[in-house]
This record gives sequence, C-alpha cells and structure tokens, in this order.
Amino acid sequence: MNKRVAVIGAGPSGLAQLRAFQSAAAKGAEIPEVVCFEKQGNWGGLWNYTWRTGLDQYGEQVHCSMYRYLWSNGPKEGLEFADYSFDEHFGRPIASYPPRAVLFDYIEGRVKKAGVRDWIRFNTAVRQVTFDAESAQFTVTVHDLVNDRTYSELFDYVVVASGHFSTPNVPSFAGFEGFNGRVLHAHDFRDAREFAGKDVLLIGTSYSAEDIGSQCWKYGARSITISHRTKPMGFNWPDNWSEVPLLERVDGHTALFRDGSSKHIDAIILCTGYVHHFPFLGDDLRLKTSNRLWPLGLYNGVVWEKNPQLFYVGMQDQWYTFNMFDAQAWYARDVMLGRLPLPDLATMQAESADWRKREEALADDYAAIRYQSEYTAGLAALTDYPPLNIEGMNEAFFQWKKHKKEDIMGFRNNSYRSAITGTISPPHHTPWKDALDDSLESYLGKP
Amino acid sequence: MNKRVAVIGAGPSGLAQLRAFQSAAAKGAEIPEVVCFEKQGNWGGLWNYTWRTGLDQYGEQVHCSMYRYLWSNGPKEGLEFADYSFDEHFGRPIASYPPRAVLFDYIEGRVKKAGVRDWIRFNTAVRQVTFDAESAQFTVTVHDLVNDRTYSELFDYVVVASGHFSTPNVPSFAGFEGFNGRVLHAHDFRDAREFAGKDVLLIGTSYSAEDIGSQCWKYGARSITISHRTKPMGFNWPDNWSEVPLLERVDGHTALFRDGSSKHIDAIILCTGYVHHFPFLGDDLRLKTSNRLWPLGLYNGVVWEKNPQLFYVGMQDQWYTFNMFDAQAWYARDVMLGRLPLPDLATMQAESADWRKREEALADDYAAIRYQSEYTAGLAALTDYPPLNIEGMNEAFFQWKKHKKEDIMGFRNNSYRSAITGTISPPHHTPWKDALDDSLESYLGKP
Repeated sequence: MNKRVAVIGAGPSGLAQLRAFQSAAAKGAEIPEVVCFEKQGNWGGLWNYTWRTGLDQYGEQVHCSMYRYLWSNGPKEGLEFADYSFDEHFGRPIASYPPRAVLFDYIEGRVKKAGVRDWIRFNTAVRQVTFDAESAQFTVTVHDLVNDRTYSELFDYVVVASGHFSTPNVPSFAGFEGFNGRVLHAHDFRDAREFAGKDVLLIGTSYSAEDIGSQCWKYGARSITISHRTKPMGFNWPDNWSEVPLLERVDGHTALFRDGSSKHIDAIILCTGYVHHFPFLGDDLRLKTSNRLWPLGLYNGVVWEKNPQLFYVGMQDQWYTFNMFDAQAWYARDVMLGRLPLPDLATMQAESADWRKREEALADDYAAIRYQSEYTAGLAALTDYPPLNIEGMNEAFFQWKKHKKEDIMGFRNNSYRSAITGTISPPHHTPWKDALDDSLESYLGKP
Repeated sequence: MNKRVAVIGAGPSGLAQLRAFQSAAAKGAEIPEVVCFEKQGNWGGLWNYTWRTGLDQYGEQVHCSMYRYLWSNGPKEGLEFADYSFDEHFGRPIASYPPRAVLFDYIEGRVKKAGVRDWIRFNTAVRQVTFDAESAQFTVTVHDLVNDRTYSELFDYVVVASGHFSTPNVPSFAGFEGFNGRVLHAHDFRDAREFAGKDVLLIGTSYSAEDIGSQCWKYGARSITISHRTKPMGFNWPDNWSEVPLLERVDGHTALFRDGSSKHIDAIILCTGYVHHFPFLGDDLRLKTSNRLWPLGLYNGVVWEKNPQLFYVGMQDQWYTFNMFDAQAWYARDVMLGRLPLPDLATMQAESADWRKREEALADDYAAIRYQSEYTAGLAALTDYPPLNIEGMNEAFFQWKKHKKEDIMGFRNNSYRSAITGTISPPHHTPWKDALDDSLESYLGKP
C-alpha cells in the first residue's frame, strides 16, 4: 500500500486517528503513510494550554480555549479511552474530575506509548485543501511556520480533526463600542484572578458560562451576573450570583437587561459558543453546521458523503468525547483500509437523515446521552476498538447531572466507577472550591 | 481593455489604488475592471474601529489595531492627500492632530467623492492567490463571509494592500503562564479606562508604547513602566512614569528586570510591533520582510520583481503614509496601464539594492524622513499625481519631532502649515491631555 493520509490537527481527535492506524499496524496490517499537520508546537489540541490570546507568535489564530485552573467539568469516567485506562496511565486510581494538566498527561500517555509523535509536523498550518477529481487526490498546501515556507503535497485521504471549540461565536450588543471595561469571549478567558473584586457579567447559559462563572466566584469576583436568551440555568448558585434576561445594552459601566433591570459591571465575558471554522476548505469539501449531535453530510458522523475520501472526526456536539473520537477514528481507518465498504450516496444520506430525525425527537439530556452512547458504541462495534461498556458510562453521566443539580459548587467532589476497569475513584483530597492550585503535582499529591 | 485587477484590502492603501484608477478613468483613460476584496464590513482598514479583539464575528482575524481615544500621533500636515486637502473636506481649517474618527471621515470623504464604493466586495476574505504561468493569470480564491460561500476568479493583476500593522509580533517572557493579571498585545488594546488605577507595564519603545502609555496616563493609570531592550525613549515623562531595562520574568504580580530592579504590576501590554502576514500567498508571491524603509523584492517599493503582475502598496515602515500610498498606487496603476515599462529583473534588483544600501547608511530619523520623502516625491513625479511639496511636509515632521522632545504630553497642542494648501492650522480648542472625548463632534465643535 502506498496510499497517503493527511490528518489535520493533533488534538484528541487527530491523535485518535494516529493511534487507530498505529494500532492496526501493531496487529500486522499494512497501513498508509500518515502525516499529521499541527499548527501548534505541541500535541493535545485544546488541552495544550497557552497564556496567549487572539493570535499566536506566528500570527495564527490561538487554538486554546482553556484557562488556568480549569478542571474537567464532567467525570473522567465518561471520557476514558477503552484501550488505555486511567488506572494504566497513573498506576493507581485517581479522583474523578482532574484539572487540565492531569488530563493532558493522560491524553499524551497513550500516544507516547503508541510512538506516533514523529508522524506529526508541528508548527505547520494548513492553508488550503483541494481535490482533483481526475487523479482522485487531494492537494494539501501548508505553511511551515518555523521556517516560513509554504509547500504542497498530494494525499489520497484527508481527515479533518481540527476541532470546533476554537473559533468563537462573538455577537455584539448595543453600547459595546463605549463600554469602559473589558469585553472578551470565553475563548480569550485565561485567569479568574484578573476578575477578583469585580462585578462580572457573563452572557450565555452553557458550559462556558457555568464554569467561568464558577471560576470567577472561586477566585474572588465580587458578583456574577449571568444573562440568558431563553431561560436561566437554574442551579443553586452562591449568594453573590444572579441570573437575568438577555442584555439589551450597556451604558458606561451599567448593563441594562430586557426586563428593565440594570447592574453595575466591570467586565463582560461572552460565553456564546463556538463555530465550525475551516478556512482551508472550499464549499465542496466544507462541513457547514451548527453545534449539534447530528450534523448532516457525514455518513456515520464521519465520512463526507459527497466525497468519501474526506473524513471529519469529532465534529458533533459532545456528551461523549475521547472515546467517541476513538470510535470515529477507528471507523474512518477501516473505511480507508477497505475493510468497511460504503453504500451509495443515496443510502448514506438516507441513514444520516434518519439519525437527524431521531436527534430532533430527543426529549431531554438523558435521551441525548443515550443517543450519543448508542452511536458511539455502534460505531466502535464495527471495528476492533475494545467494546465500550456504554451502560456504565451513561450511568456516570446520569449521576454527574444529578450531582450538579444538588450542588453546583460541590459536584466535583464526587466519585464514579470506571466503565473500563470497574475501579471506583477515590475522593479528591481537597474540595474543589478550596483547591486553588490546579497543577498535576497538587492534584496527584497530598493536600 | 478587458483586463482584471484584484485589490486586496480597502484601507488607505487599497483605497488609494481604487482612487488612482478612478482618477485615470475620469480623465478619459480606458481602465481594467477593478475588484477590491475587503474582509471587514466597511472601508478604512486600520481606521475602521471595532471594540472586537482577536477574532471577529466570522472567525477572521480582527484587523483593527486602534483604540478608543486614539489621536493621530503625527501632524495631519504630513499625511495630507495631494488631490484632496483637509480644507476641501472640512470646508475650513482644522487643528493638526485629529482623533481617529476625524481622520476616518477625511479618508472616506475622498473615496465617497470618487464614487468607488461599488468596486469593493465587503465581508470577503481572500483565502488563496495562485499564479498560472501558462495563462499568465492569477486565481484568487475568496470567502464571502455573509453568505458563507467560497469562490474563485481570474485576474491579470493583483495588488496586495492588506497592511502590515494588524498581525501582532507577540514574544513570550518567563512567568507569563503564571501571571495573574492581563497580558495583551497593543493590537488588542481598546480602552485606557480599563487600566485606571492600575500599575501598567509596557514592553517596547516605539509608537505603541509611547502612545498607549500616554493614553493610560491620561485616563488615570496609577503608574506607567516602560521596559526597553536597547535604550529608553528618553522623553520628559510625567512623574508616575519610569523607563526600565528589558523584562526578565514575572512572578505573581511582580515584574523583574535585567538590572535587578522589580515592580508591582497589574497588567502587561506588549508594544512589540507587527509582522508582515500574508497567509493567502505562497512562497513564490509572498513578501517576507521585517518592518523597514526598504524591503527587498519590490521594484520602486511596489512591483514584485519576480512577477511584475503582482504589486504591494504600503508595505514599508512609514514616516510618510497616505500620500506615499497614493504615489505607489498611481505608479502601480501606470505600470498596469502600460504607461511605464519596467526594466529587466537584474536592473530592478540592482536599483532596489541601491535603495537598500542608502537605507542602511541613514544617520538618523531626520535622514530617514528625507529618504522616504525623496522616494515618495520621485515616484509621484512619474505619474499625474499632483506634485508633492516635500520640503513643506518634511518641515512639519521636523517640527513634530522637536515638539515631542519639548513636551511629550503637550506636542499635540501645536499647529503646522499645510504643504498642500498653505493653510496654517488653528490651535485645538482644548489641550490634548484635557480632551477626554475623542468624537468627531467634540473635535470639530466648541470646547
């Protein structure tokens, strides 16, 4: 086999693709040449923290949307790799909500063991991907940022694994031009201590608002105000929190809301989500979708129906994450290896339409979790990816939701059972709200 | 003539190119079809202010590096269009250091009068420019951001006028990962009031440091510390300013400098300049240069020597600005119209090498100003651009430098003589340090 595969991005999705191929090779399969292009200087994708915001040292969009002191906002038992458990990596059970550095270490552990680092061209931004129907090949044009050199190479397959939580969705509100504090998107939020003693306004009601608000509270903000478009999140927030209707405008340091109320604010954080952004792809190859469980155009959530030499990994809205990316990557690999023939376009589109119809009928979050677990397990079962104990993982998600409802500032103090190893996590040595140090050493060490 | 010209960017340089062609057409010349691609929703380039930082509502790099309350940092008499005076635009003499909104109004006035707005495709980002030697044409691939549609068109000429003060040069310093305040590049600085009462550290000694420091001082920062790599700026700064050697590292809220001194700081602003960044160009077409008066590879500072169907406008470091862009745009136009034949490659390169040699021998800023004025006037004289009274403009620059030395917080209270109309500007109604409102109405109105 002298086929070539380009993987765009070396975050959890791209690394899953590398591990999938390496795993096949380790079992004796002949695999194509795999080249992974990564814009950043290291792997890990979103989990590769940087203090930078906006543009990086090469003028490229900063990929990182994470912040100092970020802890997983879901139990690690929901995101465990089936082929590489937390117990295996850390050599002992660890608590259920690790900070970023601990999860980065875990992600890195698997691919270090797999030995795929030299498949990756770091500091290399993909500029353009085009497909030539005659040769049935892609031309991938990239920019080697360190040597400031552009070049193009041919590939038979392209896997887009560049993520969709890096390009912020940034609405504007009346008066922003004249607001005298800082206005930023969650993407550019880095350190909660910057907002100590301040009245912080967050706009949005999803994970960013919930978690950045909690961070600011934990590190001493004076007050947290969360503005919602449709309905409040409704958790049992601390006393200095309030939920208000949508922001109408700001005037000097005053924010005015749709219900006529107003509040003094020092800073505004737009927790308004992210957009799928693929500036390197033309319309014929480009996924256009909102953030949802079933984007159309992707057979089995992975194969670009209009050109099945192109794959997307990790482009869905996510309850399941790392192990779903794995299921997708193993599946994409087996399609490329010719192990799993694809049906014709009409059949692929009909199947996708059916998944979409089911997505639209989902009654609540619990149904959505079951839907995505069924998808993930079904896909994994088509390949040699280790079987996923989906009931066990769903159970961790269901408990997590209950724990959040009970105590939004304390849910991270709970423990769950691994669906991979059966281990029950030990409680962390310090309650989350008192654990101000997010380092790996602090988390894995003694209080 | 059925040639086509693509102009990339509708800032001062791109607009100069449109005006140059329109001016020729108005005099009866047959001109090519001119299509200008502008990423932003309006013209003006850097002068088109936005509160946004980092990425815009389409996920594109925010072009604007300007901030609220920005006033011109040089006399308007140095940047006046020879074909459209300040007197003509405002109908009366105005003071010499207009705020951003006033200059935007002036820039816009000329192109409104020229009637070239419908040559511009707004909200359209250029993704890729390639050249086909066989057809001798460029393929320009763009993204219509509003309709989320990519498309390609063929052009005979391309003019790169996308500026080089938009992509920040962002170095890192030890301890940035752990600094608990805000770290930002000047590119993302928007409102000095955010830093009222704070100890602000600026790194760099060029215009950004000088002007952002002055802004922060004017709007109530507690202290300004400027860190330099080579030597201090040495102006007569206010009492709460200090100049220190290069930052060595930060530790918590403490900045430590190379001379062993340290200082409490709340925020760090990197005034470390900008880089030339053309992600839409491959190596064969891409200018690679530091910010200097004579980048190599551009014949007469404009024509891409290796492919004279490609032009760059405004890529030099700048004493002269708007009228230099004009001289370049008129020249590029006349090359495209076949009015000015080009010598062979070796001759072009030899001339460029000579200019570079002279640049390297420049003794001081005064010599540099004369050098760029000579270049600008010489280029303009090859075309029908109105003759530039370079001696008069140089005189405004020389006085400006003297005024800054005398009083860095008061130099904007001075007046200069227009080299275009001979008018002496009236003094502004309010000293700069007391004029807190930067609106056009405030500037043009009564105190």
